[in-house]
Amino acid sequence: MDTIKKYQEIFLEHFNKHKFLKEPYELYEPIDYALSAGGKKIRPVLTTMICDFFGNNYQDAINPATAIEIFHNFTLVHDDIMDDAPIRRGKPTVYKKYDVNTAILSGDTMFAKAYEFVTLTRVDKLPAVLKVFTKTAMEVCEGQQYDMNFEEQKDVSLDEYLLMIKLKTAVLMGASLKIGAIIGGADEEQADLVFEFGEEMGMVFQLQDDLLDTFGNQTTFGKRVGSDIIDCKKTYLFVKALENLDEESGANLLKIYQDRNLDEALKISSVQEIFRKAGVIEDCKVLMQKHHEKSMIALEKLQIKPVHKKVLINFAESLLVRDF
Amino acid sequence: MDTIKKYQEIFLEHFNKHKFLKEPYELYEPIDYALSAGGKKIRPVLTTMICDFFGNNYQDAINPATAIEIFHNFTLVHDDIMDDAPIRRGKPTVYKKYDVNTAILSGDTMFAKAYEFVTLTRVDKLPAVLKVFTKTAMEVCEGQQYDMNFEEQKDVSLDEYLLMIKLKTAVLMGASLKIGAIIGGADEEQADLVFEFGEEMGMVFQLQDDLLDTFGNQTTFGKRVGSDIIDCKKTYLFVKALENLDEESGANLLKIYQDRNLDEALKISSVQEIFRKAGVIEDCKVLMQKHHEKSMIALEKLQIKPVHKKVLINFAESLLVRDF
Repeated sequence: MDTIKKYQEIFLEHFNKHKFLKEPYELYEPIDYALSAGGKKIRPVLTTMICDFFGNNYQDAINPATAIEIFHNFTLVHDDIMDDAPIRRGKPTVYKKYDVNTAILSGDTMFAKAYEFVTLTRVDKLPAVLKVFTKTAMEVCEGQQYDMNFEEQKDVSLDEYLLMIKLKTAVLMGASLKIGAIIGGADEEQADLVFEFGEEMGMVFQLQDDLLDTFGNQTTFGKRVGSDIIDCKKTYLFVKALENLDEESGANLLKIYQDRNLDEALKISSVQEIFRKAGVIEDCKVLMQKHHEKSMIALEKLQIKPVHKKVLINFAESLLVRDF
Repeated sequence: MDTIKKYQEIFLEHFNKHKFLKEPYELYEPIDYALSAGGKKIRPVLTTMICDFFGNNYQDAINPATAIEIFHNFTLVHDDIMDDAPIRRGKPTVYKKYDVNTAILSGDTMFAKAYEFVTLTRVDKLPAVLKVFTKTAMEVCEGQQYDMNFEEQKDVSLDEYLLMIKLKTAVLMGASLKIGAIIGGADEEQADLVFEFGEEMGMVFQLQDDLLDTFGNQTTFGKRVGSDIIDCKKTYLFVKALENLDEESGANLLKIYQDRNLDEALKISSVQEIFRKAGVIEDCKVLMQKHHEKSMIALEKLQIKPVHKKVLINFAESLLVRDF
């Protein structure tokens, strides 16, 4: 993973140079807070790295990569309001630390700020980058809407669930790579393959996230294990378990899952047990493997150096087994 | 005003062709609702009209004008949450009709949708248009933040108030014109003059809005007269009255203005009376005249046909005396 680290450092060096704090402080202080919270910076790393793999010109990708990172954080600020989430990366979420109005308006400003960095894309690539960026922004919103719909929706099918995570998570991973590839000089066909690779990888990423949230190791994962269960989230594990279980066991899972008065530790362990018995851990891993293979098929067709392909393969494989 | 009407019709014909409704309906239905609510469409009319005045190519300005109209409506959807506003253009605001989460996410999607239309700008003008659009979006957010700050802020100076309305209202008027001028082929100096003209006109527009909200005719104005007083808004009239009045009268105004238990009709008439005595209606008109003159100085330098200048002059003058 040394290459990934290298681009992480390159990106962070540029990103940390930006001063987001200015007047009115009530608006920009929360933005600075949201953008200083850390995170793995996976998306901008992918943008700059793939740009280098195609065109050896990662510098041209720094600003669009910054746009993607700010956009991603904007969605977190607004999602946390909608999801009532009190904690993000170990710190209070923006709307908790400040208030809902501040989180709305600072989020809006982050969205605009993201476009400010898109604007700094080299002019010959700007139209294409702007198009991908904007299409993705709309899709991410659609994904969040489906996710919110699921809260009310009684039956969520597996297809609906997979469409939701594709829109909410996977397309941004695909777009991060596609934008980098475009700036690196990839033609349309290559850029689309890069997108496909990233999108399939994004599916793996999110499915693993669902697994880790329920079966992860608290220490390495960082987030609270079991929070999806406590929040009655319709995750892959839940949707698939209902598909696998007979009527009676399914009704039992539903009853426990929706019981907001149950002792939290007991609820988590009961649901974990049901998931295990329903065989959804294996199903999840099989599905992850399927998406991983699709990502590899797209990757195979990329016209980049074998040594660079190897970096992407290693990265994709690391997502299959990550515990953080 | 026939020319204005002409561009209103041209714009509406294009705008009404767009189908904003698609899946997920929970996301796009509120957008369709927000965008169908009417409104004067002043901004996109200015964009297309000035484009024609410079380059006789209003068609090239339709998409960016649509972007501006959608952006403006996005800010209204989010502002109405922040301002607790139940009614907009005679109908329930989005967050009232649906809920806060829907208004947040549908608003975000409108912002992205606005950029989708920016993306459709002819490619040679895209970088310049994108830059103006994004700068303006950030400034409008800053203006809204200052406006929210004023709610808590004890003393709001006249300069602070004028900066707030400049950012919240006037720059978007300036940008609507500047974007149209750029697409029409205006050079940078001319585009900046057009912006200045629009910005000064925007100041007049907002000051007149403050006047109408307190002293307007309910029937022609459409909005509820006195709502700024009921909401304890720090308008020009309020800020200037405190500046004009002696300590005792000022304290009296403050007491009445901030009393949320006072009978509404009584509160409105008492404050109107104080404003009248403090001479702020005249002050407001003098200030509007000052900004109008500045707009005329910028207009004078525009290299467009006299007949077109006359249209802009008539429009600017109509804002000075509008009662709607």
